[in-house]
Amino acid sequence: MKQRPRIYEVTDFVLDNYHIQLHETLFHNANGYIGLRYDFEEGYPEEYEPITSQYINGFYDYAPIPQPENLYGLVREKQLMPDIANTQTIRLSIDNESFSLFTGTVLKLRLSLDMDRGVTLRHVHWRSPKGHEVVIDITRMASFHQLSLFTIEYAITPLNFSGTARVESGHDVDVENYYDPSDPRNANEQARHIHPLNCEIRDETSYITAVTSKSGLEVTSCVQHLLPEGTQPEFWGNHQATLTRFDLELKESQTVTFVKYAVFADSLRHDNPKNHAAEEMVKAMTIPLSELYLKQEEYLEQYWKNCLVEIDGDDEANLALSYNLYQLIQSAGKDSFSNIATKGLSGEGYEGQYFWDTEIYIQPFFTVTNPAISRQLIGYRYHTLDMARENARILGHPKGALYPWRTITGREASGFFPAGSAQYHINADIAYAIIAYYLATNDLDLVLLEGAEIILETARIWLSTGNFTDGHFNLYGVTGPDEYTCLVNNNYYTNVMAKYHLEWAVTFHELLRKNPAYEAMMERIELGETEIESFRLAALEMLLPYDRQLNINPQDDAFLKKPLWNKEEIPKENYPLLLHYHPLHLYRHQICKQADTVLAHFLLEDAQPEDVMKDSFNYYARITTHDSSLSRSIFSIMAARLGMEDEALEYFGDSIKLDLMDLQHNTKDGIHTANMAGNYLAIVYGFAGLRLKVSGLSLRPMLPASWRGYRFNLRYRDSRLCIEVDQKNCTITLVEGSPKTIRVHDETCHLEDSLVFPMK
Amino acid sequence: MKQRPRIYEVTDFVLDNYHIQLHETLFHNANGYIGLRYDFEEGYPEEYEPITSQYINGFYDYAPIPQPENLYGLVREKQLMPDIANTQTIRLSIDNESFSLFTGTVLKLRLSLDMDRGVTLRHVHWRSPKGHEVVIDITRMASFHQLSLFTIEYAITPLNFSGTARVESGHDVDVENYYDPSDPRNANEQARHIHPLNCEIRDETSYITAVTSKSGLEVTSCVQHLLPEGTQPEFWGNHQATLTRFDLELKESQTVTFVKYAVFADSLRHDNPKNHAAEEMVKAMTIPLSELYLKQEEYLEQYWKNCLVEIDGDDEANLALSYNLYQLIQSAGKDSFSNIATKGLSGEGYEGQYFWDTEIYIQPFFTVTNPAISRQLIGYRYHTLDMARENARILGHPKGALYPWRTITGREASGFFPAGSAQYHINADIAYAIIAYYLATNDLDLVLLEGAEIILETARIWLSTGNFTDGHFNLYGVTGPDEYTCLVNNNYYTNVMAKYHLEWAVTFHELLRKNPAYEAMMERIELGETEIESFRLAALEMLLPYDRQLNINPQDDAFLKKPLWNKEEIPKENYPLLLHYHPLHLYRHQICKQADTVLAHFLLEDAQPEDVMKDSFNYYARITTHDSSLSRSIFSIMAARLGMEDEALEYFGDSIKLDLMDLQHNTKDGIHTANMAGNYLAIVYGFAGLRLKVSGLSLRPMLPASWRGYRFNLRYRDSRLCIEVDQKNCTITLVEGSPKTIRVHDETCHLEDSLVFPMK
Repeated sequence: MKQRPRIYEVTDFVLDNYHIQLHETLFHNANGYIGLRYDFEEGYPEEYEPITSQYINGFYDYAPIPQPENLYGLVREKQLMPDIANTQTIRLSIDNESFSLFTGTVLKLRLSLDMDRGVTLRHVHWRSPKGHEVVIDITRMASFHQLSLFTIEYAITPLNFSGTARVESGHDVDVENYYDPSDPRNANEQARHIHPLNCEIRDETSYITAVTSKSGLEVTSCVQHLLPEGTQPEFWGNHQATLTRFDLELKESQTVTFVKYAVFADSLRHDNPKNHAAEEMVKAMTIPLSELYLKQEEYLEQYWKNCLVEIDGDDEANLALSYNLYQLIQSAGKDSFSNIATKGLSGEGYEGQYFWDTEIYIQPFFTVTNPAISRQLIGYRYHTLDMARENARILGHPKGALYPWRTITGREASGFFPAGSAQYHINADIAYAIIAYYLATNDLDLVLLEGAEIILETARIWLSTGNFTDGHFNLYGVTGPDEYTCLVNNNYYTNVMAKYHLEWAVTFHELLRKNPAYEAMMERIELGETEIESFRLAALEMLLPYDRQLNINPQDDAFLKKPLWNKEEIPKENYPLLLHYHPLHLYRHQICKQADTVLAHFLLEDAQPEDVMKDSFNYYARITTHDSSLSRSIFSIMAARLGMEDEALEYFGDSIKLDLMDLQHNTKDGIHTANMAGNYLAIVYGFAGLRLKVSGLSLRPMLPASWRGYRFNLRYRDSRLCIEVDQKNCTITLVEGSPKTIRVHDETCHLEDSLVFPMK
Repeated sequence: MKQRPRIYEVTDFVLDNYHIQLHETLFHNANGYIGLRYDFEEGYPEEYEPITSQYINGFYDYAPIPQPENLYGLVREKQLMPDIANTQTIRLSIDNESFSLFTGTVLKLRLSLDMDRGVTLRHVHWRSPKGHEVVIDITRMASFHQLSLFTIEYAITPLNFSGTARVESGHDVDVENYYDPSDPRNANEQARHIHPLNCEIRDETSYITAVTSKSGLEVTSCVQHLLPEGTQPEFWGNHQATLTRFDLELKESQTVTFVKYAVFADSLRHDNPKNHAAEEMVKAMTIPLSELYLKQEEYLEQYWKNCLVEIDGDDEANLALSYNLYQLIQSAGKDSFSNIATKGLSGEGYEGQYFWDTEIYIQPFFTVTNPAISRQLIGYRYHTLDMARENARILGHPKGALYPWRTITGREASGFFPAGSAQYHINADIAYAIIAYYLATNDLDLVLLEGAEIILETARIWLSTGNFTDGHFNLYGVTGPDEYTCLVNNNYYTNVMAKYHLEWAVTFHELLRKNPAYEAMMERIELGETEIESFRLAALEMLLPYDRQLNINPQDDAFLKKPLWNKEEIPKENYPLLLHYHPLHLYRHQICKQADTVLAHFLLEDAQPEDVMKDSFNYYARITTHDSSLSRSIFSIMAARLGMEDEALEYFGDSIKLDLMDLQHNTKDGIHTANMAGNYLAIVYGFAGLRLKVSGLSLRPMLPASWRGYRFNLRYRDSRLCIEVDQKNCTITLVEGSPKTIRVHDETCHLEDSLVFPMK
């Protein structure tokens, strides 16, 4: 198989609000630090409503969370990702005619995302009202090499005239977060989150420093232009905006190019963001743009090599897969101040907050392709461990740490606790991701430095969330992943994940107990052998609900008693149910928003015999609405695991283009990062059956009958593997690194060079 | 025993904010329609913060309920009781010295509430800064005879001078509801709820009509004065206020008196409130005030006769009891637009809303003393049945009616549904009150006209809240009375009450099935024999949780598994727990805010053997914090029922002066009506063991060893009974009406004249 260029492009679309907002998301530029929605530099006529925004990952303001009653500990303030300075504006007029896609004639328009080069491109062939024809090519990049940097390369080619182009390039903080005023949730929302502190033009460079409304954080944006020789720019500015104006001489058929550089620096990461921005601008300008492009390409070449995944002969699916994986590297925070927002850096849905999506949906991808990024994401959780400790105190736990359900800074930002803070499984999810990282990399240093402390502190919460009764350890009053059933006892997912979490707390303790740094940490957190023993016992006796008659794991103690709700009886227009039924009605029926027990079976398949997982799958398949975008990929994985090929393929096909096709009608609010990773998981953990266990990496490859084959690369410890599956064989090649023992279809194999398994 | 005058008075107190606000509540005047907090007519210096307010029962405005998330069906608007026009102001100056308790010298000050006459009195002996001594006696009345009417009789007696008194009597709608700006709950609260529409002085009468902010209701207040002959009043007015000014000639040692009449009319009850107010004023002024006083006294004489209850020799307790019962008749709505707010008409706590307190705590008092009031309260529920139907639809029930947890108009006004709307027991509570009314009065007409429809429609909810599983009918996802455990399955209280409710739905059906009016109603609500049969079956198979090992009824399916929380370990300053622990922490422990299973045992004692009730009592006594004022009286009743005299007395003694002593430090926000009724219940249903059953009225009298005796009157069907208990005997006298069969200590007795039972 030959890799085709990874380019996603659109040419044929109506220039309406819907497409403007959709493309702002789909073509956004981001690198894990900055993210800029894709806007036309020249702007839009007044009647359009673009959601022009740009963001910094981990940068936050506060906003109130209204509460109907004054109960103790309710969260009254959230963090959100504020819109920062707009550096995208470039207004062009040619011989006094303003360039706009909404005047004159657009003879050609192409938006494209080149995922090998890491740039977006807009190619426009435009005829002005007076008949001037011009080709404009705009290349935008959020640099992976220099995270603070965003560039716009702007090329103008006059086709049938010579003349003058006047350019006005803007930079301003007159920006507001997006909100829909018709939504009653937004009644008290304040949209303007940053305010100008200082606006200055110095050495042909524009600096604007702004401060957030409530968090008091500062951000400096800095803009400079690289212009053709001899160009004389003029500068204007007020307290919150600057304008750089210059004229370019146009000669028929000759391309004139200029570059707009923007860098961003924030006070979360730098004591003096203005100075830092200035340094970053110098750094950016000292390298030719072509070299920056090259570095971008090199970075992505490595990325694609690590995370290659292809379905043989299905170019469309492969492009969608590439698109999804590209968004993940665009979204992933690259330092301990940031993580992966549910919408990446592409929009304001879920307010730029981080959820369990990272650990359970996205890290399983990074851990086996780019473990350094998983390492970084664990670092973010370690960085916020103290706030998880505070959160645990608020919730009444005398010891330990409880991570918040949704957050930017590490503080809880979920307002309705029954479906938010009560999702205690977040603790086990984080532990699971650390354990998986350890199993994939053997990196005990990370465990020693950060992982063990997280795992031990979070494990403590289980002991004060439940008790030993009737010979079992029970967990009370928690909510599992399925938000259509809240505040339950012994949620299977939570319990089995907590059991695994507690077991590994003990395992890591045994691995590290003699290490002086570990001992010092244990002393610091005042955790001794007695508690370790209680972890061991709670894990051993953890109740895992099982119903003998149905041969399934009930979602919780009471779930199976409740009335079944026949999905077939629900009118189509009533989906998603959460918008049409009162929570109490949902809670008291057997109806699921998303994979819950089925997700537990994927993550911890050894906890149950295969027939229990299969009967459970069939049971929950009938009552799961997949109203969450986190659901179908898990059902696909488990269908594959249980040999239900058709179902696996059906669940898989549903979601791979969720954003490209805007299947949930909300891509304008941002991409669905967890779903994007879920597609990868459905192939690698689903069809290929990858698992990470103490016994090592294991595979259970299958090939859907309608596929010719597929292949993917993996990183595993010091090695790089390539797995190729076709109708005849599964070939596993050790591309790099030392020989490995792996398991394939439950057989232990020694991988030295390559192994070939015939497909059944 | 001789009844002493029922007068509560205070003389010795500091004139500080605390006492001003406390007395505003304790001495408020109300009659079930209007309520006026007790304020000094002459006002207060600026640095004081009186909560001057007056209200109309059932009159409402809307205010938003903020919600943290946009879940379907969450309540986003509440009703509240707005402050209406202030007619209390009377400024007096004597020879240019303003009368004020905060200047000059207060030689004597007495506030009193005369519960036989139905008036409050303020007696002041004041020496002005210049040395003028004057006695001022102010008598206020909210008339039970004419509900729209409030009078202030103002008498001035100069002791050591003759001169001129200038009086300025005010009337205005420049009023705001009270809120504490430091309370974060009030951040978005709007305090001004009524706005002037029309302000007019006509025929020496002041009319102000105002409209509410959001509900669009109008209220007219009308003020007129009765002045000594020859007095020439002058009038001023603007858009929202009027002033009546007149001079009175004072002669040493001679008392001069004038009367200020105020009437109120609202558009909820009258199409043209202004016209109605004018008519009401004419009506009030045509009767001499002395006759109005007489009618007030007659009304109360009847009231006290009906609800007499006395502890022999404990004058202090008797006075407190009288005080409490007086507040109940002041608070009880007298038409179908109104009910009994948790704070009566004395303050804005709980926003003037109605809860289950009426049916479970207050109606058991009225039903056996003033059944016509119970009848009226049932009428209110019938009046709002359509809104209960709407509420049921919002919560996903295809048929039936679900009453709101808190309301004025009948619409749900509780914002946090797990501790609000989820308290489905409200339906059974209302049914229980109707059944008790029927058992006490034999009034089948009420059942036919209103009761049956309420009971059948609300019974339907149970069928769609649960299902038949494992041979039982189970109820899921409800919250019982105890708000420290929310969203549970098979709450014992809810289940046993629902069982009783369903049984009576069937019983009433059998009693009325041949009645044409009943048949027409059944056709209208489309309820047939099949549903009646499902009621019968659900009642028969209703699961009543029972734990064999502990021999108790567990509060719900999961309650006993949860960790016990030792009350002794909780620091005193952490009470009430809801202000110091996160709901999740409370929910997952065995800890109760208030009587829940124990309340069920009181209401339905035949559902369990005595030993189960006793073991349950002892179990729950250890884990109940009584953080709700609805709790102790129930524990007192059940302790008495189970022969635990000391406990019964201890629980009783704790709460009888809850408001008079301001034990909960919030009497300024209003009286605690349910607790007040609870004291009555603790004697009559507790020590005397009154129950109403199909088998008739039953008693189980006991006498605490430290008491000499007690007596009380009862209304039962067409009879009036007097029960007297002393150390020797319990004497039951038929004071009025036909002979009755009653049960005493489980023995059936025929009461023709009187019965004497020796006390054990």
